[in-house]
Amino acid sequence: EQANGKRIPPPVVHYHMNNLTSSSDPVGNRETVLILTPLAKFYQEYWDNLLRLSYPHELVTLAFIIPKNREGNAATAALQEQITKTQKSGPEKKRFASIIIERQDFEPPLVSQTETERHKMENQKARRAAMSRARNSLLFTTLGPSTSWVLWLDADIVETPPTLIQDLAAHNKPIIVPNCFQRFTDPKTRRRAERPYDFNSWQDSETAQKLAEGMGKDDILLEGYAQMATYRTLMAYMAENNGDLKQEVDLDGVGGTALLVKAEVHRDGAMFPPFPFYNLIETEGFAKMAKRLGWSSFGLPNYKVYHYNE
Amino acid sequence: EQANGKRIPPPVVHYHMNNLTSSSDPVGNRETVLILTPLAKFYQEYWDNLLRLSYPHELVTLAFIIPKNREGNAATAALQEQITKTQKSGPEKKRFASIIIERQDFEPPLVSQTETERHKMENQKARRAAMSRARNSLLFTTLGPSTSWVLWLDADIVETPPTLIQDLAAHNKPIIVPNCFQRFTDPKTRRRAERPYDFNSWQDSETAQKLAEGMGKDDILLEGYAQMATYRTLMAYMAENNGDLKQEVDLDGVGGTALLVKAEVHRDGAMFPPFPFYNLIETEGFAKMAKRLGWSSFGLPNYKVYHYNE
Ligand SMILES: Nc1nc2c(ncn2[C@@H]2O[C@H](COP(=O)(O)OP(=O)(O)O)[C@@H](O)[C@H]2O)c(=O)[nH]1
Ligand SMILES: Nc1nc2c(ncn2[C@@H]2O[C@H](COP(=O)(O)OP(=O)(O)O)[C@@H](O)[C@H]2O)c(=O)[nH]1
Ligand SMILES: [Mn+2]
Ligand SMILES: [Mn+2]
Repeated sequence: EQANGKRIPPPVVHYHMNNLTSSSDPVGNRETVLILTPLAKFYQEYWDNLLRLSYPHELVTLAFIIPKNREGNAATAALQEQITKTQKSGPEKKRFASIIIERQDFEPPLVSQTETERHKMENQKARRAAMSRARNSLLFTTLGPSTSWVLWLDADIVETPPTLIQDLAAHNKPIIVPNCFQRFTDPKTRRRAERPYDFNSWQDSETAQKLAEGMGKDDILLEGYAQMATYRTLMAYMAENNGDLKQEVDLDGVGGTALLVKAEVHRDGAMFPPFPFYNLIETEGFAKMAKRLGWSSFGLPNYKVYHYNE
Repeated sequence: EQANGKRIPPPVVHYHMNNLTSSSDPVGNRETVLILTPLAKFYQEYWDNLLRLSYPHELVTLAFIIPKNREGNAATAALQEQITKTQKSGPEKKRFASIIIERQDFEPPLVSQTETERHKMENQKARRAAMSRARNSLLFTTLGPSTSWVLWLDADIVETPPTLIQDLAAHNKPIIVPNCFQRFTDPKTRRRAERPYDFNSWQDSETAQKLAEGMGKDDILLEGYAQMATYRTLMAYMAENNGDLKQEVDLDGVGGTALLVKAEVHRDGAMFPPFPFYNLIETEGFAKMAKRLGWSSFGLPNYKVYHYNE
């Protein structure tokens, strides 16, 4: 900002947002992608997959929000080390347009966050409200007037195809979500197998609607808990052996472990409600809010990404 | 980005959002302010008042969203002319940190927008939904990780005190709104007088709550229409002759002609619902959404700003 001790007259920046596209050919149209990751723990596989993305890296900005606690400090250090490698000494082609790291100004509501602890039903509302605020903070401060797409990608997604962005964008949908699975070793057969991980991508049911009607405005519907049978149709169970990777289904709720959103959906106001919104919260509430704004959600039952197994 | 034809390794930018303040002494703490203006028509008085703001201009970023139509083109040209004067040839002290102009990618729902036409009840829902989308677009794309305050200021606010930002911030409230009046010539006495303009700042009433209960989820409550008596307590009528400029009142709805918001309220997710949210929309819905996030709204009945009189 300083030249000869003088403030340089700052430029006016004009953006013609009507010329901005988010199309089925994002590479051809040189569309920019913002990859957003709330990050509590760093996984090397996550970073390696980012580097392997075949989407032109000069069109990609990465942004992270990391809690301001000990675990977050460790994650920041690990991330920073990889960033330095990539952006300073790595091949130019692999370097990203820019990288933003935000340290978060609020504490996560749970100190110990093992998978079991996180997924306990009574912990879900506070935890997902905190996650919503983290996602909103990250989104509101990094989305720009020339961003075409936002890819939400959790830090513990350890397996993704290099063509992830192109594959999802090719469907040209406002909101699209792959199926999030988890690999594990079957204790009986001792063979490697896989199982659904994310139950937040679903088609609504009359039962769930009725459950919601009987609830207070502050209560939330949760998916994947036997105590609260919603009879929603879960994308998790729609995957088929050798199923069509391109098969699309309509969705009413979406998960956020990997999620591609046209930037204009967010710009219109779609965010992650930290409060019950139609008795839904976080990414499920986001899909509902987007719907209220006229934007629909879609899922790809046979297109898989994989979550880390603790 | 290019130096000797090479892409410069881009830096990582770190933000410690927990160190960011928004305090009652924003100048002393060097807090940055983002002034956001949806602009359909340019008024010289609006610009002159911006220039007269005594808040250090190097801490102030201006951002505009302007419709992509003929009226908007004229407004952009007029604005650009003033910006060039200020930022290029004006005194350095008057120059703002940066200025962003966004041309909007959707049409306003009404072509002719006289004050009478705008305020017709049947036009309100579509008009205010469009205004909400414009505000959200502007907000989501300009708010940064180091913004402390957001001042919403309509382009047709033609009289504001130079200490506006400091005066409002001194109250140290998440959301605070002055009273928006309008000057006019009384046809009977031919004397200059003033009257309330903005009726969106109010304290809720039981009547309004009951009206809302009887409404569909898609209906909206509107303020200032005889057909829909809400019996809310309007800040517009709380002003007193020579009243205390610092008097604060609690509010449940706020107007957006001039409105100071702590940036963290927006970062948490508070936006302008373009859809009925608890039967409220736009700035009134914003106050409700902020409340759901734990942030309260306040008004200053005797602290006035003035709206242009067509
Ligand atoms: N910034 C931030 N990120 C978090 C926090 N808790 C979890 N995360 C990250 O957010 C994503 C989702 O959280 P996770 O605990 O994996 O959720 P689950 O897999 O749905 O149970 C992951 O990338 C986490 O690393 C938090 O408190 N703050
Ligand atoms: N970007 C944008 N700004 C608008 C549009 N319509 C009005 N405005 C601006 O938004 C603000 C509020 O609109 P206005 O018509 O004055 O509302 P009212 O005074 O509440 O009736 C003013 O600054 C207008 O110049 C629009 O369609 N797009
Ligand atoms: Mn996870
Ligand atoms: Mn106006």
